Amino acid sequence: MDPNTLFWIVPVASLLVLACAAKFFFDMKKADEGTDRMKEIAGYVREGAMAYLKQQYKVVSIFFVIIAVIFGVMAYFGLQNKIVPVAFLTGGLFSGLAGFIGMKTATYASGRVAQACRDAQDGLNKGLQLAFRSGAVLGLTVVGFGLLDISGWYLILDNCDWMVAGEGVSKLVTITTIMLTFGMGASLQALFARVGGGIYTKAADVGADLVGKTEYHFNEDDPRNPATIADNVGDNVGDVAGMGADLYESYAGSILATAALGAAAAAGAGWAYEQGLQLVMAPMIIGAVGAILSILGVFMVRTKPGANQTQLMAALNKGINFSGVLIAILSAVILWVLGINNWLGIWGSIVIGLVVGIAIGKVTEYYTSFEFKPVKFIAENATTGPATVIISGIGVGMISTCWPVIFIVLGTIGAYLCSAGEFTFSAENMSMGLYGIGIAAVGMLSTLGLTLATDAYGPISDNAGGNAEMSALGDDVRSRTDALDALGNTTAATGKGFAIGSAALTALALLASYIEELKIAALNYGETFKTSYFGDTVLNSAEVAKMNIAEFMAAFDVTLMNPKVLLGIFIGAMLSFLFCGLTMNAVGRAAKSMVEEVRRQLSDKDVFEGRKKADYARCVGISTQGAQREMIVPSLIAVVVPVATGLIMGVPGVFGLLAGGLAGGFVLAVFMANSGGAWDNAKKYIETGDASFCGKHTPIHDASVVGDTVGDPFKDTSGPSLNILIKLMSMVSIVTAGLNIAFSLL
Amino acid sequence: MDPNTLFWIVPVASLLVLACAAKFFFDMKKADEGTDRMKEIAGYVREGAMAYLKQQYKVVSIFFVIIAVIFGVMAYFGLQNKIVPVAFLTGGLFSGLAGFIGMKTATYASGRVAQACRDAQDGLNKGLQLAFRSGAVLGLTVVGFGLLDISGWYLILDNCDWMVAGEGVSKLVTITTIMLTFGMGASLQALFARVGGGIYTKAADVGADLVGKTEYHFNEDDPRNPATIADNVGDNVGDVAGMGADLYESYAGSILATAALGAAAAAGAGWAYEQGLQLVMAPMIIGAVGAILSILGVFMVRTKPGANQTQLMAALNKGINFSGVLIAILSAVILWVLGINNWLGIWGSIVIGLVVGIAIGKVTEYYTSFEFKPVKFIAENATTGPATVIISGIGVGMISTCWPVIFIVLGTIGAYLCSAGEFTFSAENMSMGLYGIGIAAVGMLSTLGLTLATDAYGPISDNAGGNAEMSALGDDVRSRTDALDALGNTTAATGKGFAIGSAALTALALLASYIEELKIAALNYGETFKTSYFGDTVLNSAEVAKMNIAEFMAAFDVTLMNPKVLLGIFIGAMLSFLFCGLTMNAVGRAAKSMVEEVRRQLSDKDVFEGRKKADYARCVGISTQGAQREMIVPSLIAVVVPVATGLIMGVPGVFGLLAGGLAGGFVLAVFMANSGGAWDNAKKYIETGDASFCGKHTPIHDASVVGDTVGDPFKDTSGPSLNILIKLMSMVSIVTAGLNIAFSLL
Repeated sequence: MDPNTLFWIVPVASLLVLACAAKFFFDMKKADEGTDRMKEIAGYVREGAMAYLKQQYKVVSIFFVIIAVIFGVMAYFGLQNKIVPVAFLTGGLFSGLAGFIGMKTATYASGRVAQACRDAQDGLNKGLQLAFRSGAVLGLTVVGFGLLDISGWYLILDNCDWMVAGEGVSKLVTITTIMLTFGMGASLQALFARVGGGIYTKAADVGADLVGKTEYHFNEDDPRNPATIADNVGDNVGDVAGMGADLYESYAGSILATAALGAAAAAGAGWAYEQGLQLVMAPMIIGAVGAILSILGVFMVRTKPGANQTQLMAALNKGINFSGVLIAILSAVILWVLGINNWLGIWGSIVIGLVVGIAIGKVTEYYTSFEFKPVKFIAENATTGPATVIISGIGVGMISTCWPVIFIVLGTIGAYLCSAGEFTFSAENMSMGLYGIGIAAVGMLSTLGLTLATDAYGPISDNAGGNAEMSALGDDVRSRTDALDALGNTTAATGKGFAIGSAALTALALLASYIEELKIAALNYGETFKTSYFGDTVLNSAEVAKMNIAEFMAAFDVTLMNPKVLLGIFIGAMLSFLFCGLTMNAVGRAAKSMVEEVRRQLSDKDVFEGRKKADYARCVGISTQGAQREMIVPSLIAVVVPVATGLIMGVPGVFGLLAGGLAGGFVLAVFMANSGGAWDNAKKYIETGDASFCGKHTPIHDASVVGDTVGDPFKDTSGPSLNILIKLMSMVSIVTAGLNIAFSLL
Repeated sequence: MDPNTLFWIVPVASLLVLACAAKFFFDMKKADEGTDRMKEIAGYVREGAMAYLKQQYKVVSIFFVIIAVIFGVMAYFGLQNKIVPVAFLTGGLFSGLAGFIGMKTATYASGRVAQACRDAQDGLNKGLQLAFRSGAVLGLTVVGFGLLDISGWYLILDNCDWMVAGEGVSKLVTITTIMLTFGMGASLQALFARVGGGIYTKAADVGADLVGKTEYHFNEDDPRNPATIADNVGDNVGDVAGMGADLYESYAGSILATAALGAAAAAGAGWAYEQGLQLVMAPMIIGAVGAILSILGVFMVRTKPGANQTQLMAALNKGINFSGVLIAILSAVILWVLGINNWLGIWGSIVIGLVVGIAIGKVTEYYTSFEFKPVKFIAENATTGPATVIISGIGVGMISTCWPVIFIVLGTIGAYLCSAGEFTFSAENMSMGLYGIGIAAVGMLSTLGLTLATDAYGPISDNAGGNAEMSALGDDVRSRTDALDALGNTTAATGKGFAIGSAALTALALLASYIEELKIAALNYGETFKTSYFGDTVLNSAEVAKMNIAEFMAAFDVTLMNPKVLLGIFIGAMLSFLFCGLTMNAVGRAAKSMVEEVRRQLSDKDVFEGRKKADYARCVGISTQGAQREMIVPSLIAVVVPVATGLIMGVPGVFGLLAGGLAGGFVLAVFMANSGGAWDNAKKYIETGDASFCGKHTPIHDASVVGDTVGDPFKDTSGPSLNILIKLMSMVSIVTAGLNIAFSLL
């Protein structure tokens, strides 16, 4: 079938998905808000969250404007396409908008979920549906805006000849590489959202826990704790808005990178326009069909009135499995209908992607759930104090990097070989092999609308519990919100597997896209190049543009013994650590201010005994300022270092940087996420488990709380930010490829 | 001057150095052993240490025999030179012997140092000299055996024609590449010594501290603490024997790798035998002259009777600065006398190496000394509990990786450009550029005899303090041993800078040596190769052998877009984490057994009140068994993974593995060493500093003890083992290069 006809599925799906998100939003708004006290609490959280987001977008806008101006200047000097600044801005805009809408929904929803849980007969089922569909607003908005931005730009660029010259496959290459640059806008927005949100939420959380729980033995969400509103706000800005921006970036990035690789593969092999178009359309259409399946999946998540927790879990899983299995089947159909030659092989890559995502999720579950040995081992180490909790948690986290890396390696090899067509590695099939790696990531993320709903559902239930506690709704309501919350934690492991797995595969695909951008930049630059490593061979740009990937790499000597490549790898690996160190310390500093403020307020006996209302706004303000101040340096590093490396060490240095950053960042991200998750659940195991040393408020429990507190910034600030860092660095390099071609110091 | 004549400096220096070590040993033996109680304590420590080493060498021997047999089989099938198994064994033998002698000396010396410190007038000076010269036994033995092994093998291989065929430069290439394989024996021995010793010492230390100090508020080295002897034994097996083997490996490795690169550079450029020989001899002779300067330096470390701590420090520094400055000058003379063409450029590389070592040392000091902000920041974070101590310590450690990486990058570029001759990067000058990187490492380590003395001096003083405490020698003696100990800590930072900097540079040089081994293997294998990435080009082995490095890398497609290379980098980065995770957990498990044993013994009131002697031997046994059991898996991984990667992914995969392991391992090693050091000193700052929150036995101090305990395995087990891991993996690949040429699955 004509790919251009099939393409219309994409904008249609995007509008359908957005309409559905709007419906869920307005349905939720109609639900009962509960008592005045419940409205009051919800109001505080909403205000805090909106105040934060307003501040955040103000800072981020300045960055975006500056960078867009720089891109404009680069475009003026022919180092970049003139559409890039605009594309860059739309990527950031839609990403921010998705986070904003998702968070707005979450802050409206949580009080209403608490109210729904007050229904003694059917509270769980009602609460589940309301929370889940409110979560789905985020999921569907992210996917809807992503598809809208992609299909919109494709239509514009394909039809406006003054924007993109040329025709046939080479026009496709140009279009897809320009579109990639809107991915950079999304990445940058995502990094700010993740880092800022991550610092906010963990400063509040650590501050609330250290004083409230440890020093005063308050329960979670005790209204006397001044940091408790900030803590609830944090769930929204970090786990909803931050995660939304993060996955918007992954989603758009994987589709865009794959499309660009498809066009490049067709150009390299000299295929017809039709064949190139098939490859470009495939990831978009798979995404669109996955989005529609996500809507169906969301509707499937419902249970009988009076359902218990196991039935709730079954309901969630039914939706996820349904859409997962169906997209696996339908993507074969899509590839076949598109008429792609090696459709079966490419389908194999997609299936491999799904399997790798599930496998990494299972490993994550093994290392972070208290039903298995590693978390129990950490819990046992709590009997000898906090130091051994930390040592064993770090040990477990480091060991846990082994299998995810092996799965990524096997998955990458498998996805490459399937799509490459001949089950061998060679210079000729490399483009298609890399396309296979990209489309594996697309497969992983195709039902993001649904899996993201599962993720956003977590903080909404968490906040509903907070609202119930602060409004003193009684233990039965609280136990229902807790049941909803626990459900969210179980599904989160799989979600994390897909997020981190797709990040690695997308980053690999982006590396290949960088080469395509370099070739285009070389053509535009239009001069000759001297490659010093090959006896002063002079290449002209037309020759460069015709090279296949292996030839290009050899010509620019991006081989492993080139010191620039090796040193780039060093810098890349270091950068991940530096970035994590900065964000860890940012949380530490912000948490310290929070601890001091909470201690100051609670030293007032009236506040401590609940006669005087705690000053929540001050704590919200501390987190907001802390996050805004601290997010700038790490984010700046992510943008500046790739550019600086390019200016000093040229193309080989940048490649080294990206590869080192990717490998080092991936491993570090897995370590931090799993250590953090394992500490969290080791504490929960000690609180609720059946070992002889279990129980609350013992020194053993206190030791486990130390682990949990250390784990907070590991798993919710530094770890997830790394996922974005590794892609943002590639995106920055892609957008500034023109500079790398034009100049380098060494 | 004829290089072959100058060469004789090497064996002569080696014998001189060994004779001097023997003199220091026998001088020390003549010193007064002190009271019966002192002899008894020293005896316990000596017995424990020897029992451990005996057990250790038993386990290691099995490994060595198995591997030597495998090498023998490989040699039989022409995949390796037949000398390799023997060379491999000698490397391991001398490395082990140096550790054994150093440790024997240390265990004899520490009681005698305590006795020397009892002299009220001149105790400090006497103690310093005795401790320092006993430490010098280790330093000089390591250097002496290293030079003996190197010069001995060179003489044998150069003169026995039935071992090495050919003549001229190609014979030089064969000789130097065979000699490299004795580096693998040294590396393997070093890894076992570091990992086993590291686990031993930290299991004992953590166990002794957690129960003794935290639960019972004993002082350090309280004789009632059952783990106190094991703790003292640990200093010897970890910080003396382990470090000796470690630096033996660095020292020999850097000289051997540089010599191999020199021969390869001459072969590649088609230079005469004379010129090749000059390049091969230069690192050996610089090492020999440095060794002699080290002896002079040792003799310069002395002060007036009644010297205070500042004067002691000045005395130490005088020796170090003297030999450092002199070797910088004399190496220019050596290069000039040898008649090397670009002697000034190569000398520039050596100076750059020294500067980089000093710079990394300064950064280490900044991040780990309590006179600067980072450690004070961690100490302040102790006011909000152990969790924030851990968060900030990890943050500081991660940030601290930035400058060492930048220095290594700048140093590598500088060393390359100086030796390459034309201040540009090109395919032609690459061999000489890499030679420059290697010789920079040789420069760093040239005065190892002296710097290692400073390192070994630390545990000897520490043990002297232990002996004084357990023998109840009184506060004035203890304060003198403490002063000696404090001195050791200050000089250790610089030593660490040189150790880690030289490890990175040596590993870079070893990567280049791997190519040379591959070429030789290709010649021996004598068939044709198909390089699938370049349109099925068939290369014959003679062509491969003639390629320069850049051509070789391109032909085997060791470019960064080759998925095998990228995935190799992933595996390499992961391996560092896995290795650290395993060793961290090993310490955790062994420490847990120790804690339980100490608690059991101290629950006996007679032991607690000092009426009944604690059962020291049981604790020694627990550490020994724990270390032996736990060291096997991590060590095995380091050997097996490079071989397995080669079998599956061939040469590109191995290169990726080595580069990823090097970059990831280096950064991780710096992070762990500096976090650990910073926690240690944050605790000391809280104990002795002048901030308002300082003081012992407060909750703030307890929080800092948690940091210190976590830091123990960071800085003394996992971190330093990584230095060896990154080189051992290269060594294994070099030795099994024949396999990589002959077969790979993908």
